[in-house]
Amino acid sequence: MNKYCFGIDIGGTTIKCGLFTQEGQLVYKTQIPTRTQIGPKPVFQDIADCVMGILKEQQMDAQDVLGIGLGVPGSVRSDGMVDKCINLGWDVFYAKELMEGIVPFPVHAGNDANMAALGEYWQGGSKEYADSMLITIGTGVGGGVILGGRPLYGCFGAAGEIGHLPIIDDETEHCNCGKIGCLEQRASATGIVRTAKRLLKSSQAESVLRNRTEITSKDIFEAAQAGDALAEEVVECIAQAIAKGLACAAGIIDPECFVIGGGVSAAGEYLREKIERYYQQLVFHPSKNTNIRLATLGNDAGMYGAAKLVLIS
Amino acid sequence: MNKYCFGIDIGGTTIKCGLFTQEGQLVYKTQIPTRTQIGPKPVFQDIADCVMGILKEQQMDAQDVLGIGLGVPGSVRSDGMVDKCINLGWDVFYAKELMEGIVPFPVHAGNDANMAALGEYWQGGSKEYADSMLITIGTGVGGGVILGGRPLYGCFGAAGEIGHLPIIDDETEHCNCGKIGCLEQRASATGIVRTAKRLLKSSQAESVLRNRTEITSKDIFEAAQAGDALAEEVVECIAQAIAKGLACAAGIIDPECFVIGGGVSAAGEYLREKIERYYQQLVFHPSKNTNIRLATLGNDAGMYGAAKLVLIS
Repeated sequence: MNKYCFGIDIGGTTIKCGLFTQEGQLVYKTQIPTRTQIGPKPVFQDIADCVMGILKEQQMDAQDVLGIGLGVPGSVRSDGMVDKCINLGWDVFYAKELMEGIVPFPVHAGNDANMAALGEYWQGGSKEYADSMLITIGTGVGGGVILGGRPLYGCFGAAGEIGHLPIIDDETEHCNCGKIGCLEQRASATGIVRTAKRLLKSSQAESVLRNRTEITSKDIFEAAQAGDALAEEVVECIAQAIAKGLACAAGIIDPECFVIGGGVSAAGEYLREKIERYYQQLVFHPSKNTNIRLATLGNDAGMYGAAKLVLIS
Repeated sequence: MNKYCFGIDIGGTTIKCGLFTQEGQLVYKTQIPTRTQIGPKPVFQDIADCVMGILKEQQMDAQDVLGIGLGVPGSVRSDGMVDKCINLGWDVFYAKELMEGIVPFPVHAGNDANMAALGEYWQGGSKEYADSMLITIGTGVGGGVILGGRPLYGCFGAAGEIGHLPIIDDETEHCNCGKIGCLEQRASATGIVRTAKRLLKSSQAESVLRNRTEITSKDIFEAAQAGDALAEEVVECIAQAIAKGLACAAGIIDPECFVIGGGVSAAGEYLREKIERYYQQLVFHPSKNTNIRLATLGNDAGMYGAAKLVLIS
């Protein structure tokens, strides 16, 4: 008989719930708002209610379900301890125990970026590369490491946190994490805009980005692709920083494949090709042929990975 | 009945051969010269002769031996393919097959630095930390990653190659690997001396290092510990570079423990403490409490790890 699993991706504003077959087909998905202010317990009850509602709607029994996987926006240790979810204002708690107290299935939890990496390996851009790494470039820069087809949690739940590698030596401001010089400060959507604004200030060059009240990272990529020299310089700078992060990761884990996801990766092949070019300059020569691909699951990657976590646990 | 395993560490000038109990006791060790010019085959025959000689001397039978582990100075993939040993002038070959053709035991092979990391985990500075990383600081800078008590090979046999992370932005010369800005260029024994010479040239400060015909990294550490301000500045610079490498590694694999080995680690606690201080400034906050320890097995680490490889294979 066919069995199913749930993949849940807990975000700052919405929670995505997906029902998957064991083969990786997304059968049904929905989302509910995240009531962050009230702590994990009632939010987990919301998730349980959503899951039980889906079962009813799909005319399924609890026996049809192998388990629930949870992607949580915080450091998650391999024993399921969540070491705070800063963006949600949640303190330390045990995700597995909390959820298993209110649903009749086994529960497994992981960091949201690690789950996205697992999802891309299961059904996305790094499919069939059991040793791979995802870098997600959006409001922040995160990532997840997959080794032997399993997510690497890390001793403090911080494996794959490529956004906070201290590799931007000329940075002077502080990162949200408190340090100075994190990759995220250059390569996140905010970092890209900051880089453009600095260049507009220090340079006299003509640019379509001048005299706008607001610039987004999307504007910058569009201008660069349309041939705006200043915007192109920004993109080169960003691509180099990302490539440096990937080259550092390759020097430590030497994966088969890097996969680039997150909102900024909407810049697609235009950005990927530049990253690959800098990567080949920066990486230690044995790893020059690592595959560098674009993520394909978009915002669903975390749901896919959380569901896959059930199957490999 | 007690069983034994051999750990063999193939170096550029000598090959170290150790006979170990399964519990990790080194029962007997010897070394033979490396006849590098003649390719791997006759060298492996030398090793086989050495191993059979030890068995005879110890009045043991082939049945007492579980296998031979080989630490090889080159990229080794998990299938045993050695992707060149540049320092030995050897091209691609299969270490396992080659050795199993001439000895009556199972053979397993790994990169020498990965084997040293496994040795330090088995009986050395990172003992009982199943998720750990060794950084060896000597003529070059190398390293090895241990996850779940097993060495990480990497897709191209290049996992743990921390010496070639591209993180020294102000470097202008080329590394032996052909790139510019590798950690090794700053933190190797040669890099330390180069840093001192540059500082002596650019600064007017008094220093006991001035007007010497030859400076070694040992001289620099001794001068720093004796209070020579210029030498202290060099050591701070080196410690910061090493800490940056460790912080990058922590951002990817988040291990329980880093262990510092190689000739330069003779500077001991004096250097370790400085590395730890910079590490805490540079690393992403969840990983601030990673243990940073000194290696304890010295030049025997590779032998220990190669023997342990037999036991976990």
